[in-house]
Amino acid sequence: MRTIGVGLLGCGVVGSAVARLVRENADAIAARCGARFEIRKIAVKNRRKKHPGVPARLFTSVDKVVSSPSVDLVVEVMGGEEEAFRAIMMAIANKKHVVTANKLLLAKRGEEIFSAAIAAGIEVGFEAAVAGAVPVIRTLKEAVASGTVRSVQGIINGTSNYILTSMKDGTVSFADALAAAQKLGYAEADPTFDVEGTDAAHKVAILASLAFGSPVDFSKVHIEGISGLAPEDFEFARQFGRVIKLLAVARMEENRLDVRVHPVMVAAARPIAAVNGVTNAVEINVSDAGRLMLIGPGAGGNATASAVIANMADIARDMILGAVGRISPFGFMDRARKKLPMMPVGEITGGYYLRFTVEDKPGVLAAMAGILGDNGISIDSVIQKGRSGGVVPLVILTHHAKERDVHTAMKKIGKLRSTRNRAMIIRLDNGE
Amino acid sequence: MRTIGVGLLGCGVVGSAVARLVRENADAIAARCGARFEIRKIAVKNRRKKHPGVPARLFTSVDKVVSSPSVDLVVEVMGGEEEAFRAIMMAIANKKHVVTANKLLLAKRGEEIFSAAIAAGIEVGFEAAVAGAVPVIRTLKEAVASGTVRSVQGIINGTSNYILTSMKDGTVSFADALAAAQKLGYAEADPTFDVEGTDAAHKVAILASLAFGSPVDFSKVHIEGISGLAPEDFEFARQFGRVIKLLAVARMEENRLDVRVHPVMVAAARPIAAVNGVTNAVEINVSDAGRLMLIGPGAGGNATASAVIANMADIARDMILGAVGRISPFGFMDRARKKLPMMPVGEITGGYYLRFTVEDKPGVLAAMAGILGDNGISIDSVIQKGRSGGVVPLVILTHHAKERDVHTAMKKIGKLRSTRNRAMIIRLDNGE
Repeated sequence: MRTIGVGLLGCGVVGSAVARLVRENADAIAARCGARFEIRKIAVKNRRKKHPGVPARLFTSVDKVVSSPSVDLVVEVMGGEEEAFRAIMMAIANKKHVVTANKLLLAKRGEEIFSAAIAAGIEVGFEAAVAGAVPVIRTLKEAVASGTVRSVQGIINGTSNYILTSMKDGTVSFADALAAAQKLGYAEADPTFDVEGTDAAHKVAILASLAFGSPVDFSKVHIEGISGLAPEDFEFARQFGRVIKLLAVARMEENRLDVRVHPVMVAAARPIAAVNGVTNAVEINVSDAGRLMLIGPGAGGNATASAVIANMADIARDMILGAVGRISPFGFMDRARKKLPMMPVGEITGGYYLRFTVEDKPGVLAAMAGILGDNGISIDSVIQKGRSGGVVPLVILTHHAKERDVHTAMKKIGKLRSTRNRAMIIRLDNGE
Repeated sequence: MRTIGVGLLGCGVVGSAVARLVRENADAIAARCGARFEIRKIAVKNRRKKHPGVPARLFTSVDKVVSSPSVDLVVEVMGGEEEAFRAIMMAIANKKHVVTANKLLLAKRGEEIFSAAIAAGIEVGFEAAVAGAVPVIRTLKEAVASGTVRSVQGIINGTSNYILTSMKDGTVSFADALAAAQKLGYAEADPTFDVEGTDAAHKVAILASLAFGSPVDFSKVHIEGISGLAPEDFEFARQFGRVIKLLAVARMEENRLDVRVHPVMVAAARPIAAVNGVTNAVEINVSDAGRLMLIGPGAGGNATASAVIANMADIARDMILGAVGRISPFGFMDRARKKLPMMPVGEITGGYYLRFTVEDKPGVLAAMAGILGDNGISIDSVIQKGRSGGVVPLVILTHHAKERDVHTAMKKIGKLRSTRNRAMIIRLDNGE
């Protein structure tokens, strides 16, 4: 049986899980793909740190891993951008196949990496970069072979979904929910990437590229996080039969890519509304296959490592049969790809939840409704809290409107004497 | 670009959708897999029947399709057992690759077909045989590469799930729900295969074989359908915070295969409980990856055809690169498979819902509880309907018990003077 030498870049939670599973499950892996893997070199930041169960004699520098003649396949789970990029490009130059879980890197420089790999006849697997163990990359690359993808949307950041789940009842503040998540290890000390939507944006940029066969300009992905959400937004959502989720959305509209991450008030009856805690879920809407929904653990050492090893097995099969390059990392044949422009977020349409803080006096609603109407926005429903005489929340749900018009109206409403603070805007799902 | 000649066996709902999508989506398919497909021969039962959009000049006999030199790949969507088996074996003998949606055939004779295909160096794709467009076969064969599958369970018969969804509120009888489903085309004129669990059993036998790397003796799959369920069972389920689903279950316990199809009272909070209508859902529980849930359209021409074409694209990639046989249809390397014995259903353990029809008089519950206790079955909760003096339902939920003991107890209880009719037994999910 073929033995494939593996070099591991990074030996944190995911890296050490890969090392352990490759050893413990060697027979199961061989039974599936007909090859054995041997971890032969490992690059770690700190060689003095303890890595239980991982033999320290394998530790060396990144450069030695990616250039070692004993290494056939490099697993990059070190994270970050510059050094990981350099390491992967060097691995490719040295004819090592690559498996990476690095979503930031692929979102920003996937085009360069994939092009270099194709040119060198090298495979790059990256199932673990999005939604952990959930085979969403595989599904987009292989299961969707005849249809046109209409949209991909999902919950692809476990930390923020855990926080939103804690806040669901409208009784817990963002700060408290975050602190609890940090205590349980579901949020990092600096949670910015997770709660501000950046991590989900990296992932959805990768999914969009695979779904639509186009590069995605990451700098033009619209990103909003969850840190501004207030408990009352969850309470109002409940009253409207909705749930707030941080959704990553990738759509194609008039040959333009609409890629964004932001909170959405989802109808409670939609299956995605029931995806709670750190679980991930991705819905792929395809012209012929219909709506495919994939749910599962989006993070964690074992789950992520299982996706890494599935890619290692893919590569092993291709190596054994001399079929390297069987599927392009782009998901499309090179010549079939095209560069689609990004659609500005102002041009999307949908319903909106608008929460204002207003003086509780006559005429306020009329003034606001007037401005909305002047901008072509019609009102679906209104919740005005009991007359206490002071400052009260006023919530409006709109019918379908263009986002740009909503922002224009919000600016004008913000200038009314009777409004306080900034209004909260949350998009409603439109069932796409 | 390579053009692959396709022979189509059957041109009903799925076959004509394959023919149409292969033509209409030719560019999208080529962009994904680098090949074009051309339907060159079609076998139909009745050549005079109209097949809109399908050129009649292609129509011929099954034998001519599978032996035609212009055909590289045979798509079998004719259904049935004997003729389909003969056709597929002849296709393999003639070195044609095969894609089939025939779950009955694969459940009963998959071992023969797959073995013949491997010996001949031929690929067999069958994603469409289970859960239509939902990539559950692909996930079991490729995404689960390092872990051990603990269980596979799911809703894999759309007709029965549609009927159960209609009956959910406890106000509609099975007969009425079936009639409504038939009117909408969701149930066939003879619905036996669907509502009695046979179709789901065919599918779960295939899944079990892929999950555990063992042949499955289909004759030993335990099968119960939904036709015996009464509206009151749904009403009681609701009272217990549960929903009745027809689940297909495949587990491994002490190196024995536990494969069965029967109604289960599922906790309403489980995601699978929210899968309604004709939608299919499969949950795969893997030692390292965790619980993966895949949901989507399990039937319909386009959805099923999309799974067929995904397999055609897989085969095309392997043909182009000379990598035929890249993944065994068994999901495991031949030498890694073993024949596991089937576990008798009497040995499973779990909670049970028991609905009795009893005379409404003192001492009845005591007698029943006594018999249950004598057989080592402890009671979790009881619902006894208001004292009307006549014959009333009595419902007992048990704690974990062995199925054999439950049946022994039920026989004894059935002999009590105070019991009427046969008791209804529904298994409770145990969250596995």
